[in-house]
Amino acid sequence: MMLINGLPADTVSAADRGLAYGDGVFRTIELVAGRPRLWRWHYARLRDDCRRLRLLCPDESLLLGELAVCSVNLERAVAKVVITRGVGKRGYAMPGDAMPTRIVSAAAWGGYPGTLAEHGVTVRVCELRLSRQPLLAGIKHLNRLENVLARSEWDDPAIFEGLLLDEDGRVTEGTMSNLFYVRDGVLCTPKLDFCGVSGALRAWLMAAASEAGCPVSETRPELTELLDADELFLGNSLLGVVPVAELAQRRWSAFPVTRHWQRRRLDEN
Amino acid sequence: MMLINGLPADTVSAADRGLAYGDGVFRTIELVAGRPRLWRWHYARLRDDCRRLRLLCPDESLLLGELAVCSVNLERAVAKVVITRGVGKRGYAMPGDAMPTRIVSAAAWGGYPGTLAEHGVTVRVCELRLSRQPLLAGIKHLNRLENVLARSEWDDPAIFEGLLLDEDGRVTEGTMSNLFYVRDGVLCTPKLDFCGVSGALRAWLMAAASEAGCPVSETRPELTELLDADELFLGNSLLGVVPVAELAQRRWSAFPVTRHWQRRRLDEN
Repeated sequence: MMLINGLPADTVSAADRGLAYGDGVFRTIELVAGRPRLWRWHYARLRDDCRRLRLLCPDESLLLGELAVCSVNLERAVAKVVITRGVGKRGYAMPGDAMPTRIVSAAAWGGYPGTLAEHGVTVRVCELRLSRQPLLAGIKHLNRLENVLARSEWDDPAIFEGLLLDEDGRVTEGTMSNLFYVRDGVLCTPKLDFCGVSGALRAWLMAAASEAGCPVSETRPELTELLDADELFLGNSLLGVVPVAELAQRRWSAFPVTRHWQRRRLDEN
Repeated sequence: MMLINGLPADTVSAADRGLAYGDGVFRTIELVAGRPRLWRWHYARLRDDCRRLRLLCPDESLLLGELAVCSVNLERAVAKVVITRGVGKRGYAMPGDAMPTRIVSAAAWGGYPGTLAEHGVTVRVCELRLSRQPLLAGIKHLNRLENVLARSEWDDPAIFEGLLLDEDGRVTEGTMSNLFYVRDGVLCTPKLDFCGVSGALRAWLMAAASEAGCPVSETRPELTELLDADELFLGNSLLGVVPVAELAQRRWSAFPVTRHWQRRRLDEN
């Protein structure tokens, strides 16, 4: 089910700036019995993304209500929230009077097989290099052609994810997930100040690690550093925490830190 | 009037990848009595952009017919053609079976006052630096957040356009126009292989200059080089050719080469 600006609908104006320019942001969220998991982190990221793009962020209670309505009768669901700058006249300038478009939808959980989390996944390195744009880095905005092109580099179903490097060869993220790795006992994740998307799971995990007195280190790893890592894992809100079993001929089979975070994530609402 | 996949409509599916990811391309076109000006260049650019993003490009005759239908009774019109990858299921991978969405629309000419072309415009330099992405450079795709952010840097109506520099400080284009300048009698325009949008007017002008035996030189100018130029002008399909009268305290008042191209453009269909 889908609500657009609070009303049941499934189409948007063809003049919406979300379509014309990708002028908007989104979140993809797991719902259990109508309640979004990791909500605190999703909403904090959404608010921050809206602020950076000067979009009006909807009230938290409004979104929570609409997510519940959209997922009624679904025990477990995948939800998506999209906020665009709304319908505008021609031209890139942000219209002063545009009403944002708010699209909230949910569908039955399609999810991922549990075997991924158990046995780990095979990951490749993408050819595409992420471009550097500090003004957009970290934002889950609607300009996702780099992800589309990167994801189109392979169609081997045995490969679960592709890693994206920036122009300097620093590994930044996966095409649809954030990356974590363990080096000398320290949990690390790439910095996202030049490119990449800052996911809610990443935000939650960093906060939880910090609270536990073991802050996650933000780094700019080259690929060789990942191949030397003790463990590697991927994360996003739908996927949860999934170990990397293989990358560029290197294999891993023990994932103690990854297992810890898988358990922590199960405990988290 | 608007046609979506050939039928009168003004909304698209909220699941369209054009909205979800900016996964598509567009053109903005001037129509006179239902006929698109610079059509040969528009269609060539559209076809090339579609090829690079692996989108199916609609037949030329189909688009021409729909442009004529949309602008019936309009002597002069502004048209827009948008091609998206259509409705897809969740995930960045290009769906094998997606039907592209084709949006063709036209409205009465809103145009620009003729005084701009006569007296020239004032131009500023944007703070935002264009990111470098060779896989997307030149394509008029729907990922236009950089243009939106750059255009939001000023609201002084006396400033007509903002120049965009790349990370290395090379001037690339305007937020909604291509840039040309004359140096030692040579007409130059920035190369668009790392970033920027390759407009139909630019393509026409370069071809016309080449045919006349005076090819346009593609360069990577720093701002100082522009300030030393004999003339500067902007161009796009709706604006035509417009001289720059002022940039960063430097003023120009004679535009012989610009005037030549304004006349040539009037002769061109």
